[in-house]
Amino acid sequence: MDIYQAVYARRDVRSFRGDPVPDDVLIRILDAAHHAGSVGFMQPWNFIVIRSSEVKRQVHESFLRENGLAKENYAGERRALYESLKLAGIVEAPVNLAVTCDRRRKGPAVLGRNSIPDTDLFSTCCAIQNLWLAARAEEVGVGWVSILDPQAVKELLLIPDDVTLVAYLCIGYPVEFGERPMLEQAGWETRIPLADLVFVDAWNRRWPVLGDREKP
Amino acid sequence: MDIYQAVYARRDVRSFRGDPVPDDVLIRILDAAHHAGSVGFMQPWNFIVIRSSEVKRQVHESFLRENGLAKENYAGERRALYESLKLAGIVEAPVNLAVTCDRRRKGPAVLGRNSIPDTDLFSTCCAIQNLWLAARAEEVGVGWVSILDPQAVKELLLIPDDVTLVAYLCIGYPVEFGERPMLEQAGWETRIPLADLVFVDAWNRRWPVLGDREKP
Repeated sequence: MDIYQAVYARRDVRSFRGDPVPDDVLIRILDAAHHAGSVGFMQPWNFIVIRSSEVKRQVHESFLRENGLAKENYAGERRALYESLKLAGIVEAPVNLAVTCDRRRKGPAVLGRNSIPDTDLFSTCCAIQNLWLAARAEEVGVGWVSILDPQAVKELLLIPDDVTLVAYLCIGYPVEFGERPMLEQAGWETRIPLADLVFVDAWNRRWPVLGDREKP
Repeated sequence: MDIYQAVYARRDVRSFRGDPVPDDVLIRILDAAHHAGSVGFMQPWNFIVIRSSEVKRQVHESFLRENGLAKENYAGERRALYESLKLAGIVEAPVNLAVTCDRRRKGPAVLGRNSIPDTDLFSTCCAIQNLWLAARAEEVGVGWVSILDPQAVKELLLIPDDVTLVAYLCIGYPVEFGERPMLEQAGWETRIPLADLVFVDAWNRRWPVLGDREKP
């Protein structure tokens, strides 16, 4: 699949069919993740492939607890809309994937990480995006579940203290790839025009060339 | 370009030819960035396109200061190797790009950011990876310069206090896309086998299927 097609058709998927993801496909998307760039070629990531129903069930319990707290942020119609959204697919997805960042890998002096220590976390996110796009090309859906207590999930997966849980993903063949992002389709948020996000040479200096032509 | 081809041929580029990047191309890769997923559809990113030589010169000075500190981490042969590496291309690259994360965008209660506040930074990194891969398809090189004082660069670009500078990128047509990552080619680091990075159901439980077949 063309890279732009993957970028525009990628979705955060929450509803999965039950058919399994073959090992071959999973290995291809993990290898795509592993070929992201990383600060100092640190490759700080690990990938925990979860197929155990019991592990999924326990992670889902953490989701339910955290989602119970999160919905308290909303009231009235917004609360009703929040409660109508499907925000996880942990149990249904044939594969869950924990993506971690080992902050001590390659020792204390990692080339390029001296000034901005979080660049190892940032590298790990680049790997996740590689995986997400490669999955799209394989017709495999990925959903990033961020409504979780990372400490609880780390303990469940026996992840060491000095390793950060960056992402918990649900992976499987989707019921559908939506035409637009789910939160846009549901009326939760709208897409910001690109022209409002791009500046020239300093913050808040608009780029006139973007005024005329919203969609490239 | 096929997504896998972009993933495997993407490089962290430090040496640029002088020819400019047309606005059309730049807008296509920025729009690809903007179509990454984001927590709660927050779209927390901004992109500051820098073509001013004076701004580049001042950012380059921050690089020189930080690189002077960073090289103190190494001694002997490793230090000599470090000093031989080209770690920035700020002045030569026709375009520099600061990518930021506005942590207050969409108000205090962002859907999905209740349990893990840094998910907005993580979303911004996913946008950067979209841009990096789209650029590769356009034959445009991108280098992520992390040897910078983020506070100094923020002040120079008038970035508000509550906005995080996530990345400073150099963008332009590369002298070449190397066969392998620069730090691998230079003998600084080696690629970790995928089989060492993937576990099943818990930390450190190896996945036997990966033992036999290193390259998918």
